[in-house]
Amino acid sequence: MKKIEHLGIAVHDLEASNALFEKIFGVPHYKIEEVASEGVKTSFFKVGPNKIELLEAMDDNSPVAKFLEKRGEGVHHIAFAVDDIEAEIERLTQEGFTVLNKIPKKGADNKLVAFLHPKGTNGVLIELCQEDSSATPQSGEE
Amino acid sequence: MKKIEHLGIAVHDLEASNALFEKIFGVPHYKIEEVASEGVKTSFFKVGPNKIELLEAMDDNSPVAKFLEKRGEGVHHIAFAVDDIEAEIERLTQEGFTVLNKIPKKGADNKLVAFLHPKGTNGVLIELCQEDSSATPQSGEE
Repeated sequence: MKKIEHLGIAVHDLEASNALFEKIFGVPHYKIEEVASEGVKTSFFKVGPNKIELLEAMDDNSPVAKFLEKRGEGVHHIAFAVDDIEAEIERLTQEGFTVLNKIPKKGADNKLVAFLHPKGTNGVLIELCQEDSSATPQSGEE
Repeated sequence: MKKIEHLGIAVHDLEASNALFEKIFGVPHYKIEEVASEGVKTSFFKVGPNKIELLEAMDDNSPVAKFLEKRGEGVHHIAFAVDDIEAEIERLTQEGFTVLNKIPKKGADNKLVAFLHPKGTNGVLIELCQEDSSATPQSGEE
Protein backbone atom coordinates (compact mmCIF):
# COMPACT_ATOMS: atom_id res chain seq x y z
CA MET A 1 0.00 0.00 0.00
CA LYS A 2 1.30 3.39 -1.03
CA LYS A 3 -0.17 5.89 1.39
CA ILE A 4 -3.33 6.97 3.18
CA GLU A 5 -5.28 8.15 0.16
CA HIS A 6 -7.99 9.68 2.29
CA LEU A 7 -9.72 9.54 5.62
CA GLY A 8 -13.53 9.49 5.58
CA ILE A 9 -15.34 11.40 8.34
CA ALA A 10 -19.11 11.03 8.81
CA VAL A 11 -20.87 14.33 9.58
CA HIS A 12 -24.46 15.42 10.08
CA ASP A 13 -24.27 18.69 8.14
CA LEU A 14 -21.82 18.88 5.25
CA GLU A 15 -22.06 22.63 4.84
CA ALA A 16 -21.36 23.35 8.51
CA SER A 17 -18.51 20.82 8.54
CA ASN A 18 -16.98 22.29 5.40
CA ALA A 19 -16.76 25.63 7.21
CA LEU A 20 -15.29 23.92 10.28
CA PHE A 21 -12.59 21.96 8.43
CA GLU A 22 -11.73 24.99 6.32
CA LYS A 23 -10.81 26.70 9.60
CA ILE A 24 -8.73 23.69 10.70
CA PHE A 25 -6.80 23.29 7.44
CA GLY A 26 -6.69 26.94 6.41
CA VAL A 27 -7.87 25.99 2.90
CA PRO A 28 -11.37 25.35 1.52
CA HIS A 29 -12.66 22.01 0.20
CA TYR A 30 -11.85 21.51 -3.47
CA LYS A 31 -14.76 19.33 -4.51
CA ILE A 32 -18.32 18.30 -3.67
CA GLU A 33 -19.47 14.98 -5.10
CA GLU A 34 -22.55 12.84 -4.66
CA VAL A 35 -22.07 9.06 -4.70
CA ALA A 36 -25.55 7.77 -5.38
CA SER A 37 -24.60 4.09 -4.95
CA GLU A 38 -23.51 4.79 -1.35
CA GLY A 39 -26.25 7.31 -0.61
CA VAL A 40 -23.76 10.02 0.38
CA LYS A 41 -22.78 13.55 -0.47
CA THR A 42 -19.05 14.10 -0.01
CA SER A 43 -16.60 16.96 0.10
CA PHE A 44 -12.83 16.75 -0.21
CA PHE A 45 -9.94 18.65 1.34
CA LYS A 46 -6.28 18.24 0.38
CA VAL A 47 -3.68 18.01 3.15
CA GLY A 48 -0.33 17.53 1.43
CA PRO A 49 -0.28 14.01 -0.09
CA ASN A 50 -3.52 13.05 1.69
CA LYS A 51 -7.19 13.93 1.49
CA ILE A 52 -9.99 14.28 4.00
CA GLU A 53 -13.42 13.23 2.76
CA LEU A 54 -16.46 14.47 4.67
CA LEU A 55 -19.55 12.28 4.26
CA GLU A 56 -23.16 13.34 4.76
CA ALA A 57 -25.93 10.75 4.36
CA MET A 58 -28.45 11.46 1.59
CA ASP A 59 -30.95 8.85 2.78
CA ASP A 60 -31.73 7.15 6.06
CA ASN A 61 -30.77 3.69 4.83
CA SER A 62 -27.26 4.53 3.64
CA PRO A 63 -24.33 3.00 5.53
CA VAL A 64 -23.25 6.48 6.66
CA ALA A 65 -26.73 7.23 8.09
CA LYS A 66 -26.55 3.98 10.06
CA PHE A 67 -23.03 4.78 11.26
CA LEU A 68 -24.14 8.24 12.44
CA GLU A 69 -27.15 6.77 14.24
CA LYS A 70 -25.02 4.17 16.00
CA ARG A 71 -21.74 6.01 16.65
CA GLY A 72 -22.33 9.69 16.02
CA GLU A 73 -20.00 11.87 14.00
CA GLY A 74 -16.39 10.77 13.60
CA VAL A 75 -13.92 8.79 11.51
CA HIS A 76 -15.86 6.41 9.26
CA HIS A 77 -13.12 4.76 7.18
CA ILE A 78 -9.47 4.88 6.13
CA ALA A 79 -8.64 4.51 2.46
CA PHE A 80 -5.25 3.24 1.33
CA ALA A 81 -4.00 3.85 -2.20
CA VAL A 82 -2.98 0.70 -4.07
CA ASP A 83 -1.58 0.19 -7.56
CA ASP A 84 -3.50 -2.99 -8.38
CA ILE A 85 -6.75 -3.33 -6.43
CA GLU A 86 -7.59 -6.75 -7.84
CA ALA A 87 -4.23 -8.16 -6.75
CA GLU A 88 -4.68 -6.63 -3.28
CA ILE A 89 -8.19 -8.10 -2.94
CA GLU A 90 -6.77 -11.50 -3.86
CA ARG A 91 -3.79 -11.15 -1.49
CA LEU A 92 -5.89 -10.00 1.49
CA THR A 93 -8.50 -12.70 0.89
CA GLN A 94 -5.69 -15.27 0.96
CA GLU A 95 -4.49 -13.71 4.24
CA GLY A 96 -7.92 -14.41 5.73
CA PHE A 97 -9.55 -10.97 5.56
CA THR A 98 -13.18 -10.57 4.50
CA VAL A 99 -13.42 -8.29 1.47
CA LEU A 100 -16.95 -6.87 1.39
CA ASN A 101 -16.96 -6.53 -2.40
CA LYS A 102 -14.68 -8.87 -4.30
CA ILE A 103 -15.31 -6.91 -7.47
CA PRO A 104 -14.06 -3.31 -7.15
CA LYS A 105 -16.80 -0.71 -7.43
CA LYS A 106 -16.76 2.94 -8.43
CA GLY A 107 -16.21 5.28 -5.49
CA ALA A 108 -15.95 9.05 -5.21
CA ASP A 109 -13.09 11.01 -6.76
CA ASN A 110 -12.54 8.69 -9.77
CA LYS A 111 -11.55 5.66 -7.75
CA LEU A 112 -12.14 1.94 -7.89
CA VAL A 113 -12.73 0.81 -4.32
CA ALA A 114 -13.17 -2.27 -2.14
CA PHE A 115 -13.76 -2.52 1.61
CA LEU A 116 -12.45 -4.91 4.27
CA HIS A 117 -14.91 -6.00 6.96
CA PRO A 118 -14.05 -4.07 10.15
CA LYS A 119 -14.64 -7.13 12.32
CA GLY A 120 -11.37 -8.51 10.97
CA THR A 121 -9.40 -5.27 11.24
CA ASN A 122 -9.72 -4.09 14.86
CA GLY A 123 -12.94 -2.21 14.18
CA VAL A 124 -11.46 -0.07 11.42
CA LEU A 125 -13.31 0.08 8.10
CA ILE A 126 -10.46 -0.09 5.57
CA GLU A 127 -10.97 0.91 1.94
CA LEU A 128 -8.57 -0.02 -0.82
CA CYS A 129 -8.60 2.44 -3.66
CA GLN A 130 -7.03 2.62 -7.06
CA GLU A 131 -7.17 5.47 -9.54
CA ASP A 132 -9.81 4.59 -12.15
CA SER A 133 -8.04 5.32 -15.41
CA SER A 134 -11.25 4.70 -17.39
CA ALA A 135 -13.15 7.42 -15.52
CA THR A 136 -14.04 10.81 -16.89
CA PRO A 137 -14.35 13.81 -14.57
CA GLN A 138 -17.53 13.55 -12.49
CA SER A 139 -20.30 16.09 -12.53
CA GLY A 140 -20.40 18.11 -9.35
CA GLU A 141 -16.71 19.00 -9.38
CA GLU A 142 -16.10 22.60 -8.47
CA MET B 1 -0.94 21.51 7.88
CA LYS B 2 1.46 19.42 5.86
CA LYS B 3 0.03 15.90 5.82
CA ILE B 4 -1.53 13.18 7.96
CA GLU B 5 1.49 12.37 10.10
CA HIS B 6 -0.18 9.32 11.58
CA LEU B 7 -3.47 7.72 12.41
CA GLY B 8 -3.86 6.29 15.92
CA ILE B 9 -5.85 3.07 16.31
CA ALA B 10 -6.83 1.79 19.77
CA VAL B 11 -6.45 -1.98 20.14
CA HIS B 12 -6.88 -4.47 22.97
CA ASP B 13 -3.82 -6.61 22.21
CA LEU B 14 -0.83 -4.90 20.60
CA GLU B 15 0.96 -8.11 19.73
CA ALA B 16 -2.05 -9.63 17.96
CA SER B 17 -2.75 -6.36 16.15
CA ASN B 18 0.87 -6.04 15.04
CA ALA B 19 0.51 -9.42 13.35
CA LEU B 20 -2.80 -8.36 11.79
CA PHE B 21 -1.57 -5.03 10.40
CA GLU B 22 1.62 -6.66 9.15
CA LYS B 23 -0.64 -8.82 6.97
CA ILE B 24 -2.57 -5.78 5.76
CA PHE B 25 0.47 -3.65 4.90
CA GLY B 26 2.83 -6.44 3.89
CA VAL B 27 5.56 -4.95 6.12
CA PRO B 28 6.19 -5.29 9.87
CA HIS B 29 5.99 -2.48 12.43
CA TYR B 30 9.26 -0.56 12.73
CA LYS B 31 9.06 0.53 16.35
CA ILE B 32 7.51 -0.22 19.74
CA GLU B 33 7.42 2.66 22.19
CA GLU B 34 5.85 3.21 25.59
CA VAL B 35 4.49 6.68 26.35
CA ALA B 36 4.24 6.67 30.14
CA SER B 37 2.53 10.08 30.32
CA GLU B 38 -0.38 8.75 28.23
CA GLY B 39 -0.39 5.27 29.76
CA VAL B 40 0.02 3.57 26.38
CA LYS B 41 2.26 1.16 24.56
CA THR B 42 2.45 1.98 20.86
CA SER B 43 3.72 0.40 17.67
CA PHE B 44 4.31 2.15 14.36
CA PHE B 45 3.94 1.12 10.73
CA LYS B 46 5.05 3.19 7.73
CA VAL B 47 2.70 3.49 4.76
CA GLY B 48 4.44 5.75 2.26
CA PRO B 49 4.51 9.29 3.69
CA ASN B 50 2.15 8.33 6.54
CA LYS B 51 2.28 6.21 9.67
CA ILE B 52 -0.19 4.04 11.53
CA GLU B 53 0.18 4.01 15.31
CA LEU B 54 -1.43 1.16 17.24
CA LEU B 55 -2.23 1.99 20.86
CA GLU B 56 -2.65 -0.46 23.72
CA ALA B 57 -3.58 0.84 27.18
CA MET B 58 -1.04 0.14 29.93
CA ASP B 59 -3.39 1.05 32.76
CA ASP B 60 -7.15 1.19 33.24
CA ASN B 61 -7.25 4.95 33.74
CA SER B 62 -5.44 5.93 30.55
CA PRO B 63 -7.46 7.79 27.87
CA VAL B 64 -7.04 4.83 25.52
CA ALA B 65 -8.44 2.40 28.13
CA LYS B 66 -11.48 4.66 28.52
CA PHE B 67 -11.89 4.93 24.75
CA LEU B 68 -11.76 1.13 24.40
CA GLU B 69 -14.29 0.70 27.18
CA LYS B 70 -16.69 3.20 25.61
CA ARG B 71 -16.23 2.66 21.88
CA GLY B 72 -14.30 -0.57 21.41
CA GLU B 73 -11.35 -0.92 19.05
CA GLY B 74 -11.02 1.55 16.20
CA VAL B 75 -9.60 4.88 15.07
CA HIS B 76 -8.66 6.91 18.15
CA HIS B 77 -7.10 10.06 16.67
CA ILE B 78 -5.68 11.69 13.54
CA ALA B 79 -2.38 13.51 13.78
CA PHE B 80 -1.48 16.27 11.34
CA ALA B 81 2.12 17.35 10.85
CA VAL B 82 2.73 21.06 11.38
CA ASP B 83 5.88 23.15 11.11
CA ASP B 84 5.20 25.41 14.07
CA ILE B 85 2.95 23.86 16.69
CA GLU B 86 2.83 26.95 18.89
CA ALA B 87 1.65 29.11 15.99
CA GLU B 88 -0.99 26.50 15.08
CA ILE B 89 -2.24 26.32 18.68
CA GLU B 90 -2.55 30.10 18.68
CA ARG B 91 -4.28 30.19 15.28
CA LEU B 92 -6.79 27.44 16.12
CA THR B 93 -7.57 28.96 19.52
CA GLN B 94 -8.31 32.25 17.74
CA GLU B 95 -10.59 30.32 15.36
CA GLY B 96 -12.60 29.13 18.36
CA PHE B 97 -11.29 25.57 18.80
CA THR B 98 -10.55 24.16 22.24
CA VAL B 99 -6.94 23.06 22.47
CA LEU B 100 -6.69 20.50 25.28
CA ASN B 101 -3.08 21.42 26.10
CA LYS B 102 -1.99 24.93 25.21
CA ILE B 103 1.61 23.99 25.92
CA PRO B 104 2.84 21.26 23.56
CA LYS B 105 3.79 18.02 25.31
CA LYS B 106 6.12 15.20 24.35
CA GLY B 107 4.38 12.46 22.40
CA ALA B 108 5.60 9.19 20.88
CA ASP B 109 8.09 9.10 18.02
CA ASN B 110 10.02 12.29 18.97
CA LYS B 111 7.10 14.65 18.54
CA LEU B 112 5.73 17.67 20.30
CA VAL B 113 1.96 17.29 20.34
CA ALA B 114 -1.28 19.07 21.19
CA PHE B 115 -4.87 17.89 20.91
CA LEU B 116 -8.08 19.63 19.85
CA HIS B 117 -11.22 18.76 21.79
CA PRO B 118 -13.31 16.40 19.62
CA LYS B 119 -16.56 18.13 20.61
CA GLY B 120 -15.50 21.02 18.38
CA THR B 121 -14.27 18.88 15.48
CA ASN B 122 -17.17 16.60 14.53
CA GLY B 123 -16.18 13.93 17.03
CA VAL B 124 -12.67 13.53 15.66
CA LEU B 125 -9.77 13.75 18.10
CA ILE B 126 -7.22 15.80 16.17
CA GLU B 127 -3.56 15.89 17.17
CA LEU B 128 -1.12 18.50 15.94
CA CYS B 129 2.43 17.26 15.86
CA GLN B 130 5.78 18.80 15.20
CA GLU B 131 9.15 17.06 15.03
CA ASP B 132 10.91 17.62 18.35
CA SER B 133 14.37 18.74 17.28
CA SER B 134 15.60 18.66 20.89
CA ALA B 135 14.75 14.99 21.31
CA THR B 136 17.21 12.13 21.35
CA PRO B 137 16.20 8.68 20.10
CA GLN B 138 13.86 7.00 22.59
CA SER B 139 14.58 3.76 24.35
CA GLY B 140 12.40 0.98 23.05
CA GLU B 141 13.15 1.63 19.39
CA GLU B 142 13.73 -1.53 17.45
